[in-house]
Amino acid sequence: MKPEETIDFHIKRTWQSIAKMYNEEAGKYGATMAIGFVLLNVDPKEGTPSTSLGPKMGIEATSLSRVLKNMQEQGLIERRPNPKDGRGVLIFLTDFGKEKRADAKRAVVRFNEVVFSELPKQKVKHFFEVTETINELISSKKVYTQAYEPND
Amino acid sequence: MKPEETIDFHIKRTWQSIAKMYNEEAGKYGATMAIGFVLLNVDPKEGTPSTSLGPKMGIEATSLSRVLKNMQEQGLIERRPNPKDGRGVLIFLTDFGKEKRADAKRAVVRFNEVVFSELPKQKVKHFFEVTETINELISSKKVYTQAYEPND
Repeated sequence: MKPEETIDFHIKRTWQSIAKMYNEEAGKYGATMAIGFVLLNVDPKEGTPSTSLGPKMGIEATSLSRVLKNMQEQGLIERRPNPKDGRGVLIFLTDFGKEKRADAKRAVVRFNEVVFSELPKQKVKHFFEVTETINELISSKKVYTQAYEPND
Repeated sequence: MKPEETIDFHIKRTWQSIAKMYNEEAGKYGATMAIGFVLLNVDPKEGTPSTSLGPKMGIEATSLSRVLKNMQEQGLIERRPNPKDGRGVLIFLTDFGKEKRADAKRAVVRFNEVVFSELPKQKVKHFFEVTETINELISSKKVYTQAYEPND
């Protein structure tokens, strides 16, 4: 089995292409993909606890806090005490952050519209079923269980 | 369009699940996914120029050099001058590295066998067609061209 024949190679390569594209597009706005993701993951009305952003975005706390610091310096976000959690912090978007959130959203929607418009619905459906199956197999810890025998 | 409805969300999430799983599996052998990938990407007979590993693996030069240093300390690889490039370095696997390469290969093959055995061929075919289309759209720079109008 060559790397090009494995499913993980294609998933990784595709994710890396997307990340590169998003970073290039964000660069046109003086931003990065990570900044765009934070903008999209912060609730524009209620704010979002800083501790829940990392898990949502799948990035590590140290990387996240670097991104948040940078965003605060750029005037995209504000930190406010969380009234429901004495030691917690809520991240809010500034008006400028909300504007930039709209740009980030447009970029994500555009990419997805282009992809969906190029592909028959059935293929996209199968694509999502495959990712779903992979995630289930992994989260159920079936892959590396001695007892499990692939059924072919 | 919610994040869960975008194709990039699912690709990212699936790649992160796979990376987590590979890191956990590699951990059982005292290794990491990155070490496993280097073992798999080094030609076990001819060696591989260190400069070609980064692009092959899609990781940055600074991360790669940390991984290679670690692997050399563990006796998995050796660096030798590249006879075809005066300033270049070839990475070779030691006998211990070759043993560990077989473990890494087994883990990758196992994961792929389990995935393929759970899914009808047609779905997997469509999955690969979708990733191919995405990669083509991105590399042809079609996504963020003003002129391009999604055809639906």
